[in-house]
Amino acid sequence: MTAAASLIACDWGTTNLRAWALDDAGRILTARVFPFGVGRLKAGEAPRRFREDVLPALGGARTPALLCGMIGSTLGWTAAPYVELPAGLDDLAAQLATVDDTDGLVRIVPGVCAPGFNGQGDVMRGEETQLFGWLAGAPDRAVGRRLVCHPGTHAKWMQVEDGRLTGFVTAMTGELFALLRQHGVLRTSTPPDDPVAFDEGVAAAGRGDALAARLFTARSRVVGLGRPAATTASYLSGLLVGADVAATPRLLGETSGATVALLGDPRLCGLYARALELQGVDSEIFDGEAAAVAGLSALHRARSLR
Amino acid sequence: MTAAASLIACDWGTTNLRAWALDDAGRILTARVFPFGVGRLKAGEAPRRFREDVLPALGGARTPALLCGMIGSTLGWTAAPYVELPAGLDDLAAQLATVDDTDGLVRIVPGVCAPGFNGQGDVMRGEETQLFGWLAGAPDRAVGRRLVCHPGTHAKWMQVEDGRLTGFVTAMTGELFALLRQHGVLRTSTPPDDPVAFDEGVAAAGRGDALAARLFTARSRVVGLGRPAATTASYLSGLLVGADVAATPRLLGETSGATVALLGDPRLCGLYARALELQGVDSEIFDGEAAAVAGLSALHRARSLR
Repeated sequence: MTAAASLIACDWGTTNLRAWALDDAGRILTARVFPFGVGRLKAGEAPRRFREDVLPALGGARTPALLCGMIGSTLGWTAAPYVELPAGLDDLAAQLATVDDTDGLVRIVPGVCAPGFNGQGDVMRGEETQLFGWLAGAPDRAVGRRLVCHPGTHAKWMQVEDGRLTGFVTAMTGELFALLRQHGVLRTSTPPDDPVAFDEGVAAAGRGDALAARLFTARSRVVGLGRPAATTASYLSGLLVGADVAATPRLLGETSGATVALLGDPRLCGLYARALELQGVDSEIFDGEAAAVAGLSALHRARSLR
Repeated sequence: MTAAASLIACDWGTTNLRAWALDDAGRILTARVFPFGVGRLKAGEAPRRFREDVLPALGGARTPALLCGMIGSTLGWTAAPYVELPAGLDDLAAQLATVDDTDGLVRIVPGVCAPGFNGQGDVMRGEETQLFGWLAGAPDRAVGRRLVCHPGTHAKWMQVEDGRLTGFVTAMTGELFALLRQHGVLRTSTPPDDPVAFDEGVAAAGRGDALAARLFTARSRVVGLGRPAATTASYLSGLLVGADVAATPRLLGETSGATVALLGDPRLCGLYARALELQGVDSEIFDGEAAAVAGLSALHRARSLR
């Protein structure tokens, strides 16, 4: 079924592996999701999983493969380097890591490292590939300054200048939400599906300062004001997303309120778009999976042209 | 052994019950700690524990008792009301809740509620008793404006004007530390005992904005800069305490940098004192247990005089 595949493109993250067989033009022939994210792999398990599960499903033994995401970390298959800022597609393509014992057929996209807003450093793996896929999607995106946000467990706010990544900062917004929802005094099994409570949470986020105090209002509004405990998850979601949106861009010196490109899971991007709207900032939503495919395809082409 | 006890004073919190037998002058005759905090009690268990464990250890069947803390919540023994702001010792003494079926011998100190810095409400139970105990400890404390911080799982920042509590805000600082230390990508079993990493964390807290992003530096300084993972807990502690100290008082309109009275666990108060010092703010540390005893004793006297 995959005789025509010219590239196996993989976004191999902590939770899942998303894999696509692409033809010469970068069109998707086959798309698969495998449950063995890097966080679930035993040491040394990646090559076997790739050989026994991914290759048969998506290509032949001689199909080249390009992988991005946490598979390039020390917990993954082969540690791929970090590219420094400012970073363009060509920098990444020049530093693809070749995986041993694969006849040069399997390569991993490097991560990107930054000095960080306060000198403590910052790192990403995977989002850079989506970013360059998004940039490749329309010529005007690579002109001038752009602020791109990839929401998630570790949200990435990325500054782009004329098509190159020039700065970024990571916010543990999704992780804080998961921790607070599952453990401690705010834990709740009710899903975050109340848009009114979400908006209240965004309002409670203020300018994104004093988060530990603002979080306690998720409790006191129930205990003191009698709001339904079933709305806690939505309020908490709004508060954390609102605080992220209000405060994190400022760490990058972004205070203009210019349109934000939201890149990633469309549902999550929708929450960020709503929080930005409530704070008077425009945004546009772009699908992260499509951007990952486009990025891997563009990197493969750039590598081939070198 | 407790024939001379004129009051059984209890600070019955979520984790433990601290109980003291006091004589007529408020001096401690006996001090005990019991492991059955409100968080560990089954429904209806409080009266039996009090009758079978506390009374025999600290007083006779006819000794009056005054309880403060979460024992007055709906999860405790009897729900005691919340007193509104501004609140003085006399307001609390006037609204002690009498526990049914105790011949009027067992009373519970009310909590205090506030509109909250953003109208979402705020509540406390237990810290108010320590506050009024501290205020009773020296006449000058009840003159003018004071900023008092009670660090902990849910840290309380309290504004006092001429001896009355006029505002407060709760920050989930200790709870965030516990959640991040036990779960998620920053989890660590190393104790937070590195003062250098603590100071680095305080510096990384900045002005207490963008906490979700600042927290990620606890990871990237290890992954990107190669700092020892064993220092993560200390760095995290410094970051969270630093963010609390830098940002929470501003929610109360406190921007003067006036001396902070730290009231509570001396070790925890020491961390807050260090973070305040690094941010150029003076503080003084006062023992919370002694303040609880003094507060319960003062409330009992005020009640008797009514």
